[in-house]
Amino acid sequence: MPHITLTSGEPGIRGLFRFRPETARPLNELVESLLRADNTLSRGERELIAAYVSALNECRYCFSSHAAYAAAQLEGGMALVEQVRADVGAAPISVKMKALLAIAASVQQGGLNVTEKLVAAARETGATDVEIHDTVLIAAAFCMFNRYVDGLATIAPDDPDSYAVRAERIVSIGYLGLLEEAQNKSS
Amino acid sequence: MPHITLTSGEPGIRGLFRFRPETARPLNELVESLLRADNTLSRGERELIAAYVSALNECRYCFSSHAAYAAAQLEGGMALVEQVRADVGAAPISVKMKALLAIAASVQQGGLNVTEKLVAAARETGATDVEIHDTVLIAAAFCMFNRYVDGLATIAPDDPDSYAVRAERIVSIGYLGLLEEAQNKSS
Repeated sequence: MPHITLTSGEPGIRGLFRFRPETARPLNELVESLLRADNTLSRGERELIAAYVSALNECRYCFSSHAAYAAAQLEGGMALVEQVRADVGAAPISVKMKALLAIAASVQQGGLNVTEKLVAAARETGATDVEIHDTVLIAAAFCMFNRYVDGLATIAPDDPDSYAVRAERIVSIGYLGLLEEAQNKSS
Repeated sequence: MPHITLTSGEPGIRGLFRFRPETARPLNELVESLLRADNTLSRGERELIAAYVSALNECRYCFSSHAAYAAAQLEGGMALVEQVRADVGAAPISVKMKALLAIAASVQQGGLNVTEKLVAAARETGATDVEIHDTVLIAAAFCMFNRYVDGLATIAPDDPDSYAVRAERIVSIGYLGLLEEAQNKSS
Protein backbone atom coordinates (compact mmCIF):
# COMPACT_ATOMS: atom_id res chain seq x y z
CA MET A 1 0.00 0.00 0.00
CA PRO A 2 1.38 3.44 -0.88
CA HIS A 3 2.74 5.51 2.04
CA ILE A 4 0.44 8.42 1.10
CA THR A 5 -3.19 8.47 -0.04
CA LEU A 6 -3.28 8.21 -3.83
CA THR A 7 -6.89 8.23 -4.90
CA SER A 8 -6.53 7.52 -8.60
CA GLY A 9 -5.63 3.83 -8.36
CA GLU A 10 -3.05 4.27 -11.13
CA PRO A 11 0.11 2.20 -10.54
CA GLY A 12 3.68 3.35 -9.97
CA ILE A 13 4.67 6.88 -10.85
CA ARG A 14 1.34 7.53 -12.58
CA GLY A 15 -0.50 7.87 -9.26
CA LEU A 16 2.21 10.28 -8.10
CA PHE A 17 1.85 12.38 -11.26
CA ARG A 18 -1.86 12.65 -10.51
CA PHE A 19 -1.19 13.53 -6.86
CA ARG A 20 1.30 16.30 -7.64
CA PRO A 21 0.80 17.76 -11.15
CA GLU A 22 3.17 20.64 -10.30
CA THR A 23 6.17 18.31 -10.39
CA ALA A 24 4.71 15.85 -12.92
CA ARG A 25 5.13 18.36 -15.73
CA PRO A 26 8.91 19.01 -15.39
CA LEU A 27 9.56 15.32 -14.65
CA ASN A 28 7.83 14.33 -17.89
CA GLU A 29 9.57 17.08 -19.85
CA LEU A 30 12.89 15.79 -18.54
CA VAL A 31 12.23 12.20 -19.55
CA GLU A 32 10.78 13.21 -22.92
CA SER A 33 13.96 15.17 -23.64
CA LEU A 34 16.32 12.47 -22.35
CA LEU A 35 14.65 9.38 -23.81
CA ARG A 36 12.78 10.56 -26.91
CA ALA A 37 14.23 13.80 -28.36
CA ASP A 38 16.58 13.58 -31.37
CA ASN A 39 19.81 11.89 -30.35
CA THR A 40 22.62 9.79 -31.82
CA LEU A 41 21.59 7.12 -29.29
CA SER A 42 18.34 5.50 -30.43
CA ARG A 43 15.21 5.63 -28.29
CA GLY A 44 15.57 1.90 -27.67
CA GLU A 45 19.18 2.32 -26.51
CA ARG A 46 18.22 5.12 -24.11
CA GLU A 47 15.30 3.11 -22.70
CA LEU A 48 17.75 0.21 -22.24
CA ILE A 49 19.96 2.43 -20.04
CA ALA A 50 16.87 3.44 -18.03
CA ALA A 51 15.77 -0.19 -17.63
CA TYR A 52 19.28 -1.35 -16.69
CA VAL A 53 19.67 1.27 -13.94
CA SER A 54 16.16 0.51 -12.66
CA ALA A 55 17.15 -3.17 -12.40
CA LEU A 56 20.28 -2.25 -10.45
CA ASN A 57 18.10 -0.20 -8.10
CA GLU A 58 15.67 -3.12 -7.85
CA CYS A 59 12.73 -0.92 -8.78
CA ARG A 60 10.21 -3.40 -10.16
CA TYR A 61 7.74 -0.87 -11.57
CA CYS A 62 10.38 1.22 -13.37
CA PHE A 63 12.29 -1.83 -14.64
CA SER A 64 9.11 -3.49 -15.96
CA SER A 65 8.02 -0.23 -17.61
CA HIS A 66 11.29 0.76 -19.28
CA ALA A 67 12.16 -2.85 -20.16
CA ALA A 68 8.86 -2.93 -22.11
CA TYR A 69 9.58 0.47 -23.72
CA ALA A 70 13.11 -0.67 -24.67
CA ALA A 71 11.85 -4.03 -25.98
CA ALA A 72 9.27 -2.26 -28.16
CA GLN A 73 12.01 -0.17 -29.79
CA LEU A 74 14.94 -2.61 -30.08
CA GLU A 75 15.30 -5.37 -32.65
CA GLY A 76 16.16 -7.96 -30.00
CA GLY A 77 12.97 -7.25 -28.03
CA MET A 78 12.50 -8.40 -24.45
CA ALA A 79 14.98 -11.28 -24.86
CA LEU A 80 17.74 -8.72 -25.46
CA VAL A 81 16.69 -6.59 -22.47
CA GLU A 82 16.78 -9.67 -20.23
CA GLN A 83 20.22 -10.65 -21.59
CA VAL A 84 21.55 -7.18 -20.75
CA ARG A 85 20.11 -7.40 -17.26
CA ALA A 86 21.63 -10.86 -16.69
CA ASP A 87 25.07 -10.26 -18.22
CA VAL A 88 25.93 -7.07 -20.11
CA GLY A 89 29.30 -8.45 -21.21
CA ALA A 90 27.76 -11.42 -23.04
CA ALA A 91 24.76 -9.54 -24.51
CA PRO A 92 24.67 -8.94 -28.29
CA ILE A 93 24.90 -5.13 -28.12
CA SER A 94 27.55 -2.76 -29.49
CA VAL A 95 30.83 -2.20 -27.64
CA LYS A 96 29.78 1.44 -27.33
CA MET A 97 26.56 0.46 -25.53
CA LYS A 98 28.53 -1.85 -23.24
CA ALA A 99 30.87 1.01 -22.34
CA LEU A 100 27.96 3.40 -21.75
CA LEU A 101 26.16 0.85 -19.57
CA ALA A 102 29.35 0.49 -17.51
CA ILE A 103 29.26 4.25 -16.92
CA ALA A 104 25.55 4.03 -16.03
CA ALA A 105 26.28 1.26 -13.50
CA SER A 106 28.94 3.39 -11.83
CA VAL A 107 26.57 6.40 -11.67
CA GLN A 108 24.05 4.12 -9.95
CA GLN A 109 26.65 3.41 -7.26
CA GLY A 110 27.38 7.14 -6.85
CA GLY A 111 28.66 10.02 -8.97
CA LEU A 112 32.20 9.84 -7.61
CA ASN A 113 32.45 6.25 -8.92
CA VAL A 114 32.64 7.37 -12.55
CA THR A 115 36.37 7.12 -13.34
CA GLU A 116 38.53 8.66 -16.07
CA LYS A 117 39.19 5.10 -17.20
CA LEU A 118 35.49 4.30 -17.74
CA VAL A 119 35.02 7.52 -19.70
CA ALA A 120 38.18 6.93 -21.78
CA ALA A 121 36.98 3.40 -22.56
CA ALA A 122 33.64 4.78 -23.80
CA ARG A 123 35.42 7.37 -25.91
CA GLU A 124 37.56 4.64 -27.52
CA THR A 125 34.39 2.94 -28.73
CA GLY A 126 33.33 6.20 -30.41
CA ALA A 127 31.09 7.66 -27.69
CA THR A 128 30.74 11.44 -27.97
CA ASP A 129 30.65 14.02 -25.18
CA VAL A 130 26.88 14.37 -25.61
CA GLU A 131 26.38 10.60 -25.45
CA ILE A 132 28.51 10.38 -22.28
CA HIS A 133 26.61 13.34 -20.79
CA ASP A 134 23.23 11.88 -21.63
CA THR A 135 24.17 8.44 -20.29
CA VAL A 136 25.21 9.98 -16.95
CA LEU A 137 22.05 12.08 -16.75
CA ILE A 138 19.73 9.19 -17.73
CA ALA A 139 21.35 6.98 -15.09
CA ALA A 140 21.17 9.77 -12.49
CA ALA A 141 17.54 10.54 -13.38
CA PHE A 142 16.54 6.91 -12.88
CA CYS A 143 18.24 6.94 -9.48
CA MET A 144 15.66 9.67 -8.79
CA PHE A 145 12.63 8.03 -10.43
CA ASN A 146 13.35 4.64 -8.79
CA ARG A 147 13.60 6.27 -5.34
CA TYR A 148 10.47 8.33 -5.95
CA VAL A 149 8.39 5.30 -6.97
CA ASP A 150 9.63 2.94 -4.24
CA GLY A 151 10.16 5.59 -1.55
CA LEU A 152 6.39 6.17 -1.59
CA ALA A 153 5.66 2.42 -1.88
CA THR A 154 3.56 2.69 -5.01
CA ILE A 155 2.00 -0.41 -6.56
CA ALA A 156 3.67 -2.32 -9.42
CA PRO A 157 1.27 -4.51 -11.47
CA ASP A 158 2.30 -8.15 -11.86
CA ASP A 159 0.82 -8.59 -15.33
CA PRO A 160 3.53 -8.10 -18.01
CA ASP A 161 0.82 -7.23 -20.56
CA SER A 162 -0.06 -4.03 -18.73
CA TYR A 163 3.48 -2.76 -19.34
CA ALA A 164 3.44 -3.90 -22.98
CA VAL A 165 0.17 -2.04 -23.61
CA ARG A 166 1.64 1.11 -22.08
CA ALA A 167 4.78 0.66 -24.21
CA GLU A 168 2.71 0.93 -27.39
CA ARG A 169 1.34 4.29 -26.22
CA ILE A 170 4.78 5.56 -25.20
CA VAL A 171 6.12 4.65 -28.65
CA SER A 172 3.23 6.40 -30.38
CA ILE A 173 2.66 9.58 -28.34
CA GLY A 174 5.46 9.73 -25.75
CA TYR A 175 5.64 10.74 -22.10
CA LEU A 176 4.22 14.24 -22.47
CA GLY A 177 1.46 13.00 -24.73
CA LEU A 178 0.40 10.42 -22.16
CA LEU A 179 0.58 12.93 -19.32
CA GLU A 180 -1.66 15.34 -21.19
CA GLU A 181 -4.06 12.56 -22.10
CA ALA A 182 -4.33 11.52 -18.43
CA GLN A 183 -4.88 15.11 -17.31
CA ASN A 184 -7.59 15.68 -19.93
CA LYS A 185 -9.41 12.53 -18.87
CA SER A 186 -9.57 13.70 -15.27
CA SER A 187 -10.69 17.26 -15.99
CA MET B 1 38.85 18.23 -14.70
CA PRO B 2 35.37 17.49 -16.05
CA HIS B 3 34.96 14.22 -17.99
CA ILE B 4 33.50 16.12 -20.98
CA THR B 5 34.53 19.42 -22.57
CA LEU B 6 32.62 22.25 -20.88
CA THR B 7 33.72 25.48 -22.47
CA SER B 8 31.95 27.97 -20.23
CA GLY B 9 34.20 27.66 -17.16
CA GLU B 10 31.13 27.79 -14.90
CA PRO B 11 31.41 25.46 -11.89
CA GLY B 12 29.26 22.47 -10.94
CA ILE B 13 25.91 22.01 -12.57
CA ARG B 14 26.04 25.45 -14.19
CA GLY B 15 28.52 24.29 -16.83
CA LEU B 16 26.25 21.30 -17.51
CA PHE B 17 23.20 23.56 -17.92
CA ARG B 18 25.17 25.54 -20.52
CA PHE B 19 26.31 22.33 -22.28
CA ARG B 20 22.80 20.87 -22.54
CA PRO B 21 20.09 23.56 -22.42
CA GLU B 22 17.49 20.98 -23.53
CA THR B 23 17.63 19.26 -20.14
CA ALA B 24 18.59 22.39 -18.15
CA ARG B 25 15.08 23.79 -18.54
CA PRO B 26 13.06 20.89 -17.03
CA LEU B 27 15.70 20.36 -14.33
CA ASN B 28 15.38 23.99 -13.24
CA GLU B 29 11.59 23.88 -13.46
CA LEU B 30 11.64 20.82 -11.19
CA VAL B 31 13.85 22.44 -8.57
CA GLU B 32 11.94 25.73 -8.73
CA SER B 33 8.72 23.82 -8.05
CA LEU B 34 10.20 21.62 -5.32
CA LEU B 35 12.26 24.18 -3.42
CA ARG B 36 10.59 27.54 -4.04
CA ALA B 37 6.90 27.21 -4.95
CA ASP B 38 4.27 27.78 -2.24
CA ASN B 39 4.49 25.04 0.34
CA THR B 40 3.79 24.42 4.03
CA LEU B 41 7.51 23.63 4.34
CA SER B 42 9.50 26.87 4.16
CA ARG B 43 12.07 27.46 1.42
CA GLY B 44 14.80 27.23 4.05
CA GLU B 45 13.49 23.86 5.28
CA ARG B 46 13.35 22.45 1.76
CA GLU B 47 16.88 23.67 0.99
CA LEU B 48 17.98 22.02 4.23
CA ILE B 49 16.66 18.66 2.97
CA ALA B 50 18.54 19.21 -0.31
CA ALA B 51 21.77 20.12 1.52
CA TYR B 52 21.45 17.18 3.92
CA VAL B 53 21.00 14.62 1.13
CA SER B 54 23.88 16.18 -0.82
CA ALA B 55 26.09 15.78 2.27
CA LEU B 56 25.09 12.11 2.56
CA ASN B 57 26.02 11.66 -1.12
CA GLU B 58 29.31 13.51 -0.47
CA CYS B 59 28.64 15.93 -3.31
CA ARG B 60 30.75 18.95 -2.37
CA TYR B 61 29.36 21.33 -4.98
CA CYS B 62 25.69 20.57 -4.25
CA PHE B 63 26.18 20.56 -0.49
CA SER B 64 28.05 23.88 -0.53
CA SER B 65 25.42 25.42 -2.78
CA HIS B 66 22.28 24.25 -0.99
CA ALA B 67 23.84 24.74 2.45
CA ALA B 68 24.35 28.39 1.47
CA TYR B 69 20.80 28.65 0.09
CA ALA B 70 19.39 27.07 3.28
CA ALA B 71 21.54 29.27 5.53
CA ALA B 72 20.32 32.38 3.72
CA GLN B 73 16.69 31.43 4.42
CA LEU B 74 16.84 29.93 7.93
CA GLU B 75 17.14 31.85 11.17
CA GLY B 76 19.99 29.68 12.42
CA GLY B 77 22.08 30.35 9.31
CA MET B 78 25.11 28.23 8.40
CA ALA B 79 25.69 27.18 12.02
CA LEU B 80 22.32 25.41 11.97
CA VAL B 81 23.02 23.73 8.63
CA GLU B 82 26.34 22.43 9.96
CA GLN B 83 24.64 21.16 13.13
CA VAL B 84 22.12 19.24 11.04
CA ARG B 85 24.88 17.74 8.96
CA ALA B 86 26.87 16.72 12.05
CA ASP B 87 24.00 15.39 14.18
CA VAL B 88 20.35 15.76 13.16
CA GLY B 89 19.10 14.41 16.50
CA ALA B 90 20.83 17.15 18.50
CA ALA B 91 20.14 20.03 16.10
CA PRO B 92 17.64 22.74 17.17
CA ILE B 93 15.02 21.99 14.50
CA SER B 94 11.39 20.88 14.84
CA VAL B 95 10.51 17.23 15.52
CA LYS B 96 8.69 17.29 12.18
CA MET B 97 11.86 18.32 10.34
CA LYS B 98 13.80 15.59 12.16
CA ALA B 99 11.26 13.00 11.04
CA LEU B 100 11.30 14.29 7.45
CA LEU B 101 15.12 14.27 7.39
CA ALA B 102 15.04 10.64 8.58
CA ILE B 103 12.83 9.83 5.58
CA ALA B 104 15.20 11.76 3.30
CA ALA B 105 18.17 9.78 4.65
CA SER B 106 16.41 6.50 3.91
CA VAL B 107 15.55 7.64 0.37
CA GLN B 108 19.24 8.40 -0.12
CA GLN B 109 20.03 4.76 0.72
CA GLY B 110 17.36 3.52 -1.70
CA GLY B 111 13.60 3.85 -2.18
CA LEU B 112 12.83 0.46 -0.64
CA ASN B 113 14.45 1.64 2.63
CA VAL B 114 11.55 3.99 3.42
CA THR B 115 9.55 2.05 6.00
CA GLU B 116 5.97 2.34 7.24
CA LYS B 117 7.47 3.14 10.63
CA LEU B 118 9.43 6.15 9.36
CA VAL B 119 6.34 7.49 7.60
CA ALA B 120 4.11 6.89 10.65
CA ALA B 121 6.66 8.71 12.84
CA ALA B 122 6.57 11.71 10.50
CA ARG B 123 2.79 11.70 10.48
CA GLU B 124 2.74 11.71 14.31
CA THR B 125 4.72 14.97 14.27
CA GLY B 126 2.05 16.51 12.02
CA ALA B 127 3.62 15.91 8.60
CA THR B 128 1.02 15.90 5.81
CA ASP B 129 0.86 13.64 2.74
CA VAL B 130 2.13 16.49 0.56
CA GLU B 131 5.04 17.16 2.93
CA ILE B 132 5.97 13.46 2.96
CA HIS B 133 5.66 13.33 -0.84
CA ASP B 134 7.77 16.42 -1.33
CA THR B 135 10.44 15.22 1.10
CA VAL B 136 10.76 11.93 -0.78
CA LEU B 137 10.92 13.70 -4.14
CA ILE B 138 13.43 16.34 -2.97
CA ALA B 139 15.67 13.60 -1.56
CA ALA B 140 15.30 11.53 -4.73
CA ALA B 141 15.96 14.55 -6.94
CA PHE B 142 19.20 15.32 -5.09
CA CYS B 143 20.27 11.70 -5.58
CA MET B 144 20.01 12.64 -9.27
CA PHE B 145 21.61 16.09 -9.10
CA ASN B 146 24.52 14.84 -6.96
CA ARG B 147 25.22 11.98 -9.41
CA TYR B 148 24.94 14.33 -12.40
CA VAL B 149 27.40 16.86 -10.95
CA ASP B 150 29.97 14.33 -9.70
CA GLY B 151 29.44 11.71 -12.42
CA LEU B 152 30.76 14.24 -14.92
CA ALA B 153 33.49 15.41 -12.51
CA THR B 154 32.54 19.07 -12.59
CA ILE B 155 34.53 21.61 -10.60
CA ALA B 156 33.46 22.77 -7.10
CA PRO B 157 34.93 26.15 -6.05
CA ASP B 158 36.75 26.16 -2.67
CA ASP B 159 35.77 29.72 -1.77
CA PRO B 160 32.66 29.74 0.51
CA ASP B 161 31.94 33.32 -0.59
CA SER B 162 31.16 32.21 -4.13
CA TYR B 163 28.28 30.08 -2.80
CA ALA B 164 27.05 32.87 -0.52
CA VAL B 165 26.96 35.32 -3.42
CA ARG B 166 24.98 32.84 -5.48
CA ALA B 167 22.62 32.28 -2.52
CA GLU B 168 21.63 35.95 -2.56
CA ARG B 169 20.64 35.64 -6.22
CA ILE B 170 18.71 32.40 -5.62
CA VAL B 171 16.78 34.08 -2.81
CA SER B 172 15.95 37.08 -4.97
CA ILE B 173 15.19 35.62 -8.42
CA GLY B 174 15.23 31.82 -8.03
CA TYR B 175 16.49 28.96 -10.16
CA LEU B 176 14.56 29.77 -13.31
CA GLY B 177 15.43 33.44 -13.04
CA LEU B 178 19.13 32.63 -12.83
CA LEU B 179 18.93 30.16 -15.71
CA GLU B 180 17.26 32.73 -17.93
CA GLU B 181 19.78 35.39 -16.89
CA ALA B 182 22.68 33.06 -17.80
CA GLN B 183 21.10 32.20 -21.15
CA ASN B 184 20.51 35.87 -22.00
CA LYS B 185 24.12 36.75 -21.19
CA SER B 186 25.41 34.13 -23.60
CA SER B 187 23.13 35.01 -26.50
